[in-house]
Amino acid sequence: MHAITIPEPGGPEALVWDEVPDPVPGEGEVLVEVVASAVNRADVLQRQGFYNPPPGASPYPGLECSGRIAALGPGVAGWAVGDEVCALLTGGGYAEKVAVPAGQLLPVPEGIDLGRAAALPEVTCTVWSNVFMIAHLRPGETLLVHGGSSGIGTMAIQLAKAVGAKVAVTAGTEEKLRRCAELGADVLINYREQDFVEEIKKATDGAGADVILDNMGAKYLERNVQSLAVNGRLAIIGMQGGVKGELNIGALLGKRGAISATTLRARPLGEKAAIVAAVREHVWPLLAAGHVRPVVDRELPMSDAAAAHRVVEESGHVGKVLLITP
Amino acid sequence: MHAITIPEPGGPEALVWDEVPDPVPGEGEVLVEVVASAVNRADVLQRQGFYNPPPGASPYPGLECSGRIAALGPGVAGWAVGDEVCALLTGGGYAEKVAVPAGQLLPVPEGIDLGRAAALPEVTCTVWSNVFMIAHLRPGETLLVHGGSSGIGTMAIQLAKAVGAKVAVTAGTEEKLRRCAELGADVLINYREQDFVEEIKKATDGAGADVILDNMGAKYLERNVQSLAVNGRLAIIGMQGGVKGELNIGALLGKRGAISATTLRARPLGEKAAIVAAVREHVWPLLAAGHVRPVVDRELPMSDAAAAHRVVEESGHVGKVLLITP
Repeated sequence: MHAITIPEPGGPEALVWDEVPDPVPGEGEVLVEVVASAVNRADVLQRQGFYNPPPGASPYPGLECSGRIAALGPGVAGWAVGDEVCALLTGGGYAEKVAVPAGQLLPVPEGIDLGRAAALPEVTCTVWSNVFMIAHLRPGETLLVHGGSSGIGTMAIQLAKAVGAKVAVTAGTEEKLRRCAELGADVLINYREQDFVEEIKKATDGAGADVILDNMGAKYLERNVQSLAVNGRLAIIGMQGGVKGELNIGALLGKRGAISATTLRARPLGEKAAIVAAVREHVWPLLAAGHVRPVVDRELPMSDAAAAHRVVEESGHVGKVLLITP
Repeated sequence: MHAITIPEPGGPEALVWDEVPDPVPGEGEVLVEVVASAVNRADVLQRQGFYNPPPGASPYPGLECSGRIAALGPGVAGWAVGDEVCALLTGGGYAEKVAVPAGQLLPVPEGIDLGRAAALPEVTCTVWSNVFMIAHLRPGETLLVHGGSSGIGTMAIQLAKAVGAKVAVTAGTEEKLRRCAELGADVLINYREQDFVEEIKKATDGAGADVILDNMGAKYLERNVQSLAVNGRLAIIGMQGGVKGELNIGALLGKRGAISATTLRARPLGEKAAIVAAVREHVWPLLAAGHVRPVVDRELPMSDAAAAHRVVEESGHVGKVLLITP
């Protein structure tokens, strides 16, 4: 088969479409013939040499895919060759075939195109596990989503609205904020021109956000704590603004606040399967009913993954950038 | 009645046993004739002028008491004059009488002396709400308790052991560590002589603590994060080591860790009542069965609260220091 390899870490040109051996599904795994994958920021870090695949993972990038089951490994029940699926991966999505633990498979939701289903696994699992399983966003509460127009942001807006929460977003352009509003965002904050602490306070009668979904890490830590409501929960899923920041414990304690920090990729199989099962139970019906949809910025040939990485690195996109196999 | 008043903030001598008007129980409150109260660090801060009572609270210090119900305010059901109780207070425990919302009352547990029951409300509510309701300590997990010989520490050790967890403690003297061991602590760390990060790693085959109960705040923040296991939870309940500290978000994220910071006193009535109800359900049977007991360092006359504050400020005590009414 072909896959995107990284002979030497570097810029987008480091991604090379090359011939490699087919993966072999192990115990409890299935082999998926990939129709599409999607770009995640972790792929960019992996390409740059900053995010090595965990032990046992595929060496190729790609944390999600959609496609058809081509073979079942030993001990797999509930799936059949030919099933149309999408999957959360520990790597290897940028390839014509990938071996996946069965617990990380999801059926393609009713009414969703097979290729576009590749836009779903990472964002639904990340948002559901953080905003709902960890931070327990409840109807009537306010969610603040940083990077509202990102793949994760666009899904977070829709899922939070679907459960009856109020949603505030930050983004860097008016066009991105307009797209967030189309998806249901109630409060639009241009972080280049506005102070998000002030804006979230204004939008909540001074109360603050009950849950914050943050991809910035250190750069926003102090302001995120300032933006939390009493009993507020800050869920950190990225560190695009740095790794170490000052935490004002007094401010957090005054709010009885909580901070979590997680990644999906490093979770063991059992935890991933539990998240996938929860997503299938709670998010899949919303997709089938049309209340929530994948937001796709563009589709590019997988062999030109470099072009897709350039789009994501320039942050010009809204939603997911897909990679389509030949 | 008499109460400890604070005419001017200051040292222990600022505490003055004076005649003051009797409190009047409001809607949903009862009047308790106090037999004993107990010293908490928040009382010391209040005496120093650093921790003003929340709006509506008694101006006198004292966050817990035991005694007998002397009168019922309007709308109180389930309690009767003469009942022997202990109570979580928002203030006013250093007095001969105090008005308490009925939701913050607990019956004196079977087999526990009425006076010594004053040692229970703060420590049981603080430990249960943080270690179990927020951090969800589970059987087989490891709890690290900083200040293992404090009132809160001695209760945390016993409750964690009672649910089948492993317990590590830090304390500053061998004698305090010996007392922690008597209460069931499995791993004893002298923080003056040992590095608690190294010791907790050693004691858990490198895994770290699943839950940490911390009263130090900033001073321990970095080392607490280093001490956490994967999926570990740090519950901060005090800032004896400072308010602002550097948080290594990368380290927290690598462990999928969580940090909470809470105080009991500032919680609204409904949250306090929910905690008290959970404590009555889960902790009271353990007290009645003798699996858990109040640890009392000494009993002093309430009129000499200054002496009790000196003991607590010198950290020479193990467990609670009680104040007995005349």
